[in-house]
Amino acid sequence: SVRAHSSLPATTNLMGFFPTLDYWRLCEQLDFVSNDAYPLLHEQADMGREVDQFAMVHDLMRCMGGGRPFIQMEASPGPTNWMARPKLKRPGMHRLEMLLAIAHGADGTMYFQWRKSRGCHEKFHGAVVDHVGTEHTRMFREIATYGAELDKLEPVLGTGTAARVALVADWEARWALERSCGPGHKEQDHIKDYLGTCRDWHAAFSHLGVAVDICERRSDFGGYDILVLPQLFLIDDDTAQRLRAFVAGGGTLVATQLTGIVDATNRCHLGGWPGPDLRDLFGVWAEEIDVLYPEDLQSIALVPDNDLGLAGTFTVTDYADRIHTQGAEVLASYTHQFYAQQPALTRNRHGEGSAWYLAARTEPAFLAALANALVGQTGISRATTAPLPEGVHAARRCDTQHEYLFLLNFARHARTVTLDRAGRDLLSGKQTGTQLRLDGYGALVIERPLG
Amino acid sequence: SVRAHSSLPATTNLMGFFPTLDYWRLCEQLDFVSNDAYPLLHEQADMGREVDQFAMVHDLMRCMGGGRPFIQMEASPGPTNWMARPKLKRPGMHRLEMLLAIAHGADGTMYFQWRKSRGCHEKFHGAVVDHVGTEHTRMFREIATYGAELDKLEPVLGTGTAARVALVADWEARWALERSCGPGHKEQDHIKDYLGTCRDWHAAFSHLGVAVDICERRSDFGGYDILVLPQLFLIDDDTAQRLRAFVAGGGTLVATQLTGIVDATNRCHLGGWPGPDLRDLFGVWAEEIDVLYPEDLQSIALVPDNDLGLAGTFTVTDYADRIHTQGAEVLASYTHQFYAQQPALTRNRHGEGSAWYLAARTEPAFLAALANALVGQTGISRATTAPLPEGVHAARRCDTQHEYLFLLNFARHARTVTLDRAGRDLLSGKQTGTQLRLDGYGALVIERPLG
Amino acid sequence: SVRAHSSLPATTNLMGFFPTLDYWRLCEQLDFVSNDAYPLLHEQADMGREVDQFAMVHDLMRCMGGGRPFIQMEASPGPTNWMARPKLKRPGMHRLEMLLAIAHGADGTMYFQWRKSRGCHEKFHGAVVDHVGTEHTRMFREIATYGAELDKLEPVLGTGTAARVALVADWEARWALERSCGPGHKEQDHIKDYLGTCRDWHAAFSHLGVAVDICERRSDFGGYDILVLPQLFLIDDDTAQRLRAFVAGGGTLVATQLTGIVDATNRCHLGGWPGPDLRDLFGVWAEEIDVLYPEDLQSIALVPDNDLGLAGTFTVTDYADRIHTQGAEVLASYTHQFYAQQPALTRNRHGEGSAWYLAARTEPAFLAALANALVGQTGISRATTAPLPEGVHAARRCDTQHEYLFLLNFARHARTVTLDRAGRDLLSGKQTGTQLRLDGYGALVIERPLG
Repeated sequence: SVRAHSSLPATTNLMGFFPTLDYWRLCEQLDFVSNDAYPLLHEQADMGREVDQFAMVHDLMRCMGGGRPFIQMEASPGPTNWMARPKLKRPGMHRLEMLLAIAHGADGTMYFQWRKSRGCHEKFHGAVVDHVGTEHTRMFREIATYGAELDKLEPVLGTGTAARVALVADWEARWALERSCGPGHKEQDHIKDYLGTCRDWHAAFSHLGVAVDICERRSDFGGYDILVLPQLFLIDDDTAQRLRAFVAGGGTLVATQLTGIVDATNRCHLGGWPGPDLRDLFGVWAEEIDVLYPEDLQSIALVPDNDLGLAGTFTVTDYADRIHTQGAEVLASYTHQFYAQQPALTRNRHGEGSAWYLAARTEPAFLAALANALVGQTGISRATTAPLPEGVHAARRCDTQHEYLFLLNFARHARTVTLDRAGRDLLSGKQTGTQLRLDGYGALVIERPLG
Repeated sequence: SVRAHSSLPATTNLMGFFPTLDYWRLCEQLDFVSNDAYPLLHEQADMGREVDQFAMVHDLMRCMGGGRPFIQMEASPGPTNWMARPKLKRPGMHRLEMLLAIAHGADGTMYFQWRKSRGCHEKFHGAVVDHVGTEHTRMFREIATYGAELDKLEPVLGTGTAARVALVADWEARWALERSCGPGHKEQDHIKDYLGTCRDWHAAFSHLGVAVDICERRSDFGGYDILVLPQLFLIDDDTAQRLRAFVAGGGTLVATQLTGIVDATNRCHLGGWPGPDLRDLFGVWAEEIDVLYPEDLQSIALVPDNDLGLAGTFTVTDYADRIHTQGAEVLASYTHQFYAQQPALTRNRHGEGSAWYLAARTEPAFLAALANALVGQTGISRATTAPLPEGVHAARRCDTQHEYLFLLNFARHARTVTLDRAGRDLLSGKQTGTQLRLDGYGALVIERPLG
Repeated sequence: SVRAHSSLPATTNLMGFFPTLDYWRLCEQLDFVSNDAYPLLHEQADMGREVDQFAMVHDLMRCMGGGRPFIQMEASPGPTNWMARPKLKRPGMHRLEMLLAIAHGADGTMYFQWRKSRGCHEKFHGAVVDHVGTEHTRMFREIATYGAELDKLEPVLGTGTAARVALVADWEARWALERSCGPGHKEQDHIKDYLGTCRDWHAAFSHLGVAVDICERRSDFGGYDILVLPQLFLIDDDTAQRLRAFVAGGGTLVATQLTGIVDATNRCHLGGWPGPDLRDLFGVWAEEIDVLYPEDLQSIALVPDNDLGLAGTFTVTDYADRIHTQGAEVLASYTHQFYAQQPALTRNRHGEGSAWYLAARTEPAFLAALANALVGQTGISRATTAPLPEGVHAARRCDTQHEYLFLLNFARHARTVTLDRAGRDLLSGKQTGTQLRLDGYGALVIERPLG
């Protein structure tokens, strides 16, 4: 062990949801967590999804470090040379990218690389100092300006994140799903998309300004009000027992298609899905899994006048479990295919809590609607009660006295954000009102006493 | 040999037109033929083509067994797990799939697998018994219902198929074409498509309710009225002699583009195509082979007032041989490219019969029209003289006294079929009229005395 | 060395811009240059680009042989069998293809292959004698007719090409660009496209009927009026010195995006691009390279009333250098992205000449406009002063007394070409007027006294 040779803190530069190593196990050996992040933030059509993805990755880093701040170890202030088309970052985008990490729990941001190498593989990788060798480059000046701002964010140092929602994104569950031959082909059109499914659920809450912790299946679910299991394909007996206890104790549990299919050795649970023996918890039996072609029509229709106020019809793609209720209420049903009218969204009361089963992959709009209803029901606080404008990302850090609200405008144009109560913008040092203007690619960090 | 150790009948599970093994040679060693078949029958746009493909495969199995019944050894009643999107089969579709095999000569249908394995590669492959372990699944119930119906089909057991049309689909010809560098690239957009060409010709007759045998080039062509050589790229001297004798004896021979290009060692025939020395049989010389781009315009126009009643213009794709008549009549000519007005379809009288040359790959509608004309001229009987409705597949088996007409509706909606004469539906046990209604995905097996 | 064993002239069949061998070094060992060329001339949408490409390749062959005639060693008069869809060549197209080589400096054209092999890989590759073995094929007759015409072109034998425009297409520069990780991914959508960039510049002059020599960076630039450096990614000190001398002596130098980025060891030049230390020559500093997504909008707008008469706005794709003037005039500026209004085309007076920097990859129409302006300014002569009709390729060879103007109509329909002065068509032997009709796929070779 390196510890025999040094008493310096140990870390290593992690790389997000690295596919082939269970980072939870690695993090048990580290003194603090650090990460490399190279998001694609170039005004492309799906840039919003990239922001969602990296918000989730930063949350993962914070949670793998036990909630303590992490370090953004590697970032590129300029083009990332191995990308298909390494674009320049627009002025202001690099700063937003760094503030996103800090908003989700980073206490420091660093670069790969200080100075561009003259030769070899990474000679065109963004750096603080370019080949020209001077400080008179756009990139150097942007970094210098951002660096000066960091002083103003000192109050944020060491603060945490108070999440009451958690999402399970488990390495072994992902491996089990991806390595299984079916349902759906891993290589062909990425239908399984475990991380994408997690990201869409994370975004459903994140877009509400609600903090989310990322758990693995071994995590302690005790402190949460809402626990989401996106495609938690692998569930073992111990996890099943803790999920049961979570609901019995008053928690709201949300499972989706492909939940509880296999055990920790990737063998299918016998006796009916979701397993192991979780049919009574959810009050459903999932008989078989339909896989849809892109041209197939399917959707779910909400039962009228349900107590969550959910209404409408939402598109289903890729996966649709055919389920039978065994005690659960039906909140939505399928509209097409031979299983039209059969249940698609169910809720089962169990102890003090409830267990939801969403049998199909729906369009993100439905996840947003459901997250909104559950958050409303649970009384979880949001960064802003008024809806966030499109493109504005909101995240909070807090200590025992203050909260620090990061408002990051990833839109090219100005946006107006409405707050419940005023505060002080750390970046400008000015008191704010409750109607805040954010420039295109602008940012605010509002300090307020804890509400 | 395994025969030294057992007197049990020997078979092995074949896999259709397996690319790398000449099954005719293998079948010489078997006591009976058995096959695996996993058609894609999921209401996708090209599902009809898949039915055509497997009808041809079943015919191959029957013919490789000398016309005797074969066994459908492997089938999946549910999703086929290795497919890109393993869909559930709609109710009724599994039964249709099994009856298609029986209609074309199977005397038994079996499953891979009885019970889903818990783990490993095939844990999501369809089975009779699912992981839940009970008989209360949709799939189990469909299989049980179909199994009960099999008793009613006992009269069909052991019966044969009386085909007067045959099609040559030869393993070595396929290998010679595919392994040659040109004309057209094997890997790129599958232009050669040997089996697809065979399937389209098979379908042209099959859609008329006309039985087709599948031959190899070594087969005895003696008993047939019509013999089709779709892209029979490889012709050796012995085959040439038997083709000549077939026509001389009164047969109707139909060859297409890419016929008689190489010998059994994949060396080109010298002295002009079609070879070897078959120019006088067809009355044409094929000088060169044009390969069309997808955007190129080409078609064939029928000569007005020809004695077959064929009329109109039909699209040509991919291949167009430039041919010169040397004694043959011209029935159709090209309409575009620098060889416009040059012959595209010819007929040559030879002995008691005639030899046709269709120089280009046409749209299936022309193959249908030509098959219809040739069948009409030859007086070959059809399952129904009235045209079959779209989606309905018809095939007959017979013994010395009865014929058994399978009517399988692969359409989602009901269809009406008109018969020449009434019979008894074995599945329902009822006498029928001559106007029969077939439910969506419905089936009838009509027993009638031989006409 | 083979020279120890024979006094016969040594050559080898080159293959255009062969990717992995620097042909300039190989040609130093040859007594004369010969080449294989298999253009795709099948009326496909981008056939014009293929003509442009092979015109450039033939110019390369001529220049690598020191301006002396070369041999077209391999050509296929029929289908090229390894192509995805090996089409027949339309009547007349083979002759045009051969005359294109002669127009650009070939003194002989030969075939691969004389006779089609019976078997093996190339049995379907075009040849003079087909498998049928006779002279009665379309292909044989076309070759025989073309062969007879060659006698009439005897005056052209040994003549040269008087080019005042040169373009640097350097093997090591290409390797340096392609092997670098960035800017842009080599394998993904071929964004770097070194040869395509060279071809587009070559075509800009070639479409004006202006002869172009192909140089490498080591070449002597002394005799030229205009020198173009398309993406000359690699520039070493010696080349820089000669470029400086070229401009100082009165030359017009045109550089583009990605110029002078690395040295001969593929290490980036420090101190600012274009390097090495060429900022003063061009009067610009290229700070950073933007890479555009296909959906990004960008263009350059010409400064009004510039002295070249250039006007309008032209689309930019893929690459846009962000440059700063340090002495140069701005002729055009960007219109979009955060560097809108910043310079995109500059000119710097240096000594007797001028150095241009075009910072972005533009649509070919702009290269055509700029080439036209520069040719006009420089007083370089064109094959015809009237614009050439679409599809007509013009190229000249000359000796001390005559010039031989090749007019090749790659269009399917007839075209009319207007000459400054009449001459004699060597192919027909007839005197011409100044208004010449070219049949579809027709050709003329006009002999005139040197102007």
